[in-house]
Amino acid sequence: MEFLTDKVALIGNKGKGIRSDCHVTMELPETGGIQIELISKVESMYGNDIRKLLHDIISFYGFENARMLVEDFGALSPVIAARVEAAVRHLSGSEKEYLLPMSDKNKYATTRDRNRFSRLYLPGNTPSLMINAGVHKPDGIILDLEDAVAHTKKYEARFMVRNALRNIDFYGAERMVRINQVPAGLADLEFLIPHNVNLILVPKCESAEQIRLVNEKINELKAKYNINGNVWLMPIIESALGVLKALEIAQSENVVALAIGLEDYTADLGTRRTQEGTESFFARSMVVNACKAAGIQAIDSVFSDVADMEALKENVIRSKALGFDGMGCIHPRQIRVIHENYAPDTVEIEKAKKIVNAFIEATAKGLGVVSLGTKMIDPPVVKRAQKLIDLAITLGKLSPEWHDEFLNA
Amino acid sequence: MEFLTDKVALIGNKGKGIRSDCHVTMELPETGGIQIELISKVESMYGNDIRKLLHDIISFYGFENARMLVEDFGALSPVIAARVEAAVRHLSGSEKEYLLPMSDKNKYATTRDRNRFSRLYLPGNTPSLMINAGVHKPDGIILDLEDAVAHTKKYEARFMVRNALRNIDFYGAERMVRINQVPAGLADLEFLIPHNVNLILVPKCESAEQIRLVNEKINELKAKYNINGNVWLMPIIESALGVLKALEIAQSENVVALAIGLEDYTADLGTRRTQEGTESFFARSMVVNACKAAGIQAIDSVFSDVADMEALKENVIRSKALGFDGMGCIHPRQIRVIHENYAPDTVEIEKAKKIVNAFIEATAKGLGVVSLGTKMIDPPVVKRAQKLIDLAITLGKLSPEWHDEFLNA
Amino acid sequence: MEFLTDKVALIGNKGKGIRSDCHVTMELPETGGIQIELISKVESMYGNDIRKLLHDIISFYGFENARMLVEDFGALSPVIAARVEAAVRHLSGSEKEYLLPMSDKNKYATTRDRNRFSRLYLPGNTPSLMINAGVHKPDGIILDLEDAVAHTKKYEARFMVRNALRNIDFYGAERMVRINQVPAGLADLEFLIPHNVNLILVPKCESAEQIRLVNEKINELKAKYNINGNVWLMPIIESALGVLKALEIAQSENVVALAIGLEDYTADLGTRRTQEGTESFFARSMVVNACKAAGIQAIDSVFSDVADMEALKENVIRSKALGFDGMGCIHPRQIRVIHENYAPDTVEIEKAKKIVNAFIEATAKGLGVVSLGTKMIDPPVVKRAQKLIDLAITLGKLSPEWHDEFLNA
Repeated sequence: MEFLTDKVALIGNKGKGIRSDCHVTMELPETGGIQIELISKVESMYGNDIRKLLHDIISFYGFENARMLVEDFGALSPVIAARVEAAVRHLSGSEKEYLLPMSDKNKYATTRDRNRFSRLYLPGNTPSLMINAGVHKPDGIILDLEDAVAHTKKYEARFMVRNALRNIDFYGAERMVRINQVPAGLADLEFLIPHNVNLILVPKCESAEQIRLVNEKINELKAKYNINGNVWLMPIIESALGVLKALEIAQSENVVALAIGLEDYTADLGTRRTQEGTESFFARSMVVNACKAAGIQAIDSVFSDVADMEALKENVIRSKALGFDGMGCIHPRQIRVIHENYAPDTVEIEKAKKIVNAFIEATAKGLGVVSLGTKMIDPPVVKRAQKLIDLAITLGKLSPEWHDEFLNA
Repeated sequence: MEFLTDKVALIGNKGKGIRSDCHVTMELPETGGIQIELISKVESMYGNDIRKLLHDIISFYGFENARMLVEDFGALSPVIAARVEAAVRHLSGSEKEYLLPMSDKNKYATTRDRNRFSRLYLPGNTPSLMINAGVHKPDGIILDLEDAVAHTKKYEARFMVRNALRNIDFYGAERMVRINQVPAGLADLEFLIPHNVNLILVPKCESAEQIRLVNEKINELKAKYNINGNVWLMPIIESALGVLKALEIAQSENVVALAIGLEDYTADLGTRRTQEGTESFFARSMVVNACKAAGIQAIDSVFSDVADMEALKENVIRSKALGFDGMGCIHPRQIRVIHENYAPDTVEIEKAKKIVNAFIEATAKGLGVVSLGTKMIDPPVVKRAQKLIDLAITLGKLSPEWHDEFLNA
Repeated sequence: MEFLTDKVALIGNKGKGIRSDCHVTMELPETGGIQIELISKVESMYGNDIRKLLHDIISFYGFENARMLVEDFGALSPVIAARVEAAVRHLSGSEKEYLLPMSDKNKYATTRDRNRFSRLYLPGNTPSLMINAGVHKPDGIILDLEDAVAHTKKYEARFMVRNALRNIDFYGAERMVRINQVPAGLADLEFLIPHNVNLILVPKCESAEQIRLVNEKINELKAKYNINGNVWLMPIIESALGVLKALEIAQSENVVALAIGLEDYTADLGTRRTQEGTESFFARSMVVNACKAAGIQAIDSVFSDVADMEALKENVIRSKALGFDGMGCIHPRQIRVIHENYAPDTVEIEKAKKIVNAFIEATAKGLGVVSLGTKMIDPPVVKRAQKLIDLAITLGKLSPEWHDEFLNA
């Protein structure tokens, strides 16, 4: 297909290794009618369906003339739709959204203190990595609009991420998106809030004011779209200033965790990340303390050597010992090691059993106060023990009948 | 003895291993006169004295009918009186205090910067541990109303601690009480301030505001009871929030030291206390720095393995190296090791001798400035050196004639 | 020469080992005319010149009677002038300054972010150490008015330092002076600001308020003497309070770096400085983070064992790994080791080359955004990489033609 005007949109990915994606070349000439060329490796099975989708989109935007080449590498409908919509809106300036019906499977909410051992980073413009991400059962998936998306691809990635939120099944993982740095990243929210994003990662956060701006924008969008659910925030601390401001950030509204990003942090110090982590010990300690002081979770940095599972394990053990509740991951194979080593161990489970039992007994006796020996147990400690017990049961590390067994032991 | 009404007070301890204590069972029926039964293992020697005391208390409160069983395990008078008063007031709601005359030996004050290497925790409702505590010569004893007292025993423990402050000899140890968490713990002060408590430990402190409330209550009681002496405060930092607020707490009025409590702190982080202490290094550093910034003492956490003296010694050496001035202890046998290893060593004494000598020389010459070589020595450094020299003399590590020897060396 | 009155000024140094200095004994009697005695080891070559200078000074102050003994040990004119002026002004109370013409070589300015690997401490009253200091090419020299000057010598040291700033060639090293503690040290500024001092070290800094006072005094003097250049500030953190206030100090106006002083800091903690530095790890981390958060340099403490180059090297490596940008030194022989080990290494240079290349490419393409892979590179990171490349070229670690080589590789 030959393109004639100066104004041609090139959207999506093509080339060696590209799959589950498509590349759209489009122009909107003044004459010539609708001309669509589709090159697809699944032509025989899905060619007609794809063509129907392409025509539907063109028709939705009301164009009488359009020239479009779609090179398809096995893209699903929401991917194709995202690519074509990005092309159309880029060329026409239209603000209209072309939305496929949202999957019912994608309408779940998450709780403030749900388990967050692992969260898998997925580049926001790479649909092939999103399709099966949920199968690996990370606690959360992160559709990344920031560092994993090239500057020239920022525009189209928002459409891709929006459609992923609507139509890709993440199997119950918490649906997170990392926006671009505030204030630029505020505009990303328009593509996320109406589509049941559970949590927003705010990169390079350095003040409570940045979080206030994010909340303000989210509230504006929630009002506009009549949305009631919570949108949690996870600021990422990745600079010395962020480290020193960690407490005010952690205490901000809707923040459920702070993450620390050590690549950028060590670059900010002008030093290098080491395996022992001496250079970031202060920063990690400050972040853990700020989180616990604010009653939220502390999330550790990703571990970048995806081949070394033993080193990852050691890293998780050290991380948990410092007080972190989870970490990021950049490859699905890291998830199992992360889950196994952040999971409550025998000592923790035994302690939690004693506390929960003391609570059960106190409640049975109508006491307002839970005690273990002479020591009173504060309500948050009881709640945390109960949560740990529930988690241990979920992970198959504890029988649901543990209490009967405890009483009979 | 048979008790007839529903309202029976059960106060004190009995059972295997109980000594120096008694257990009181009491009711205040409407008829029947005064009925007292005493079962005592020291009946032959002290039976009449004890009965006289019991009648005196009943008479003090003006009851015409009372039924009381006292099971005595060698309790001293102030212990028996505390138990009976608690029973009487619990049953009658009377606010009157039954006070034995305060021992003259218990009227000493302590100074803001006195030595505080060791402070021995004593459960506030266990008189047997209090009786000889002072013999072991800790720098301070802590009568604990918080974690070492079961919730059901909080009421009676206040009477026990009050009478201990009045009538048990602690041989010059600083007389400390750990109250319950603020705000609940403020009510404990009524039982302490009029009875020459030297220092109040404020547990789980997380803000200067909590200390302000404690000071306010103390000042109110000092005014009410016409008391002039100082009541020092030692907040305990045992949470992440407390750690991050350490400076404002340390700078609060009447605070002479911060203590750190690592069991609760590590629980707050959701981690575990280790021998190396990596998980609490940041917290301990912050507390030390906050204390030194405020010009007060930094007191380390207790060491819980009371059998391992070698590990305790290593712990003290590391603690002192970080800047701590002392630590808590939970068994008298820990005191000697703590004193020996926090005590000034030869290097410190030699340095202090040089500074004090420079001060003596400057004073002799009428100079306003003390110098060592070219370096001016600030007055607080001179003062600290003088204090260290005095301490070294007290501990027998330095001759009182050291200065003559220094000049002749 | 015999001195007759009570009021005799004794200024400068004499005795074994003294060189490049002189000692002035002077009185201003009411009669007797001008009597000058010179004892000089360079009498034969410079005797007449020195006598001329002495007469010139006496005449400048308009005295008709003066008795002066000058014992000279090879002092340069600015040294002799400083000693005699101090004597004259001490005796007469005159505020007039006797200034030799300022050397043109001493009129250079320094930039906010110039390289500061090494800064050599020079006692402010010891001219012999100043004369050749610049030859060793430290990044900066510190004329010290504080700890290296005895209290009795503070007065005369100001004249010495002022004349050094005017007439001693430091070969391009940044011209720094450590003043005495604020507020006393504010008076030192009168002797420094009019004489092109580049940077003021503010010792034992504990608040932004102290820096505000220094800036206020500097601005007052700049206005008075019509000076436009910048005077940078480097506060020294050497107490626990300073550590906890590091961020507010780092963010103060004209501050280009914080230094940490570990001898005084560990004394403030009541502990000792060790080779491993566990006792100061928190403080050093806090200072590094405060500096990077404020976008300024972090400067480490001096290393006091001037004989052990291997230990110094290890110290620098650890210091750089923590994020420090340089350190103090107390002997010229430390400079080379310091420079070599703070200098950018191969890994840093390679990374910087990639970033600068990406910047060059983005600029060539007219892009407003610099990217490496998908990751956008923030402007400060680009600027830092450019600075590192420039430095590597200056240090001979990189060819000025590196970019051509990079493109051809």
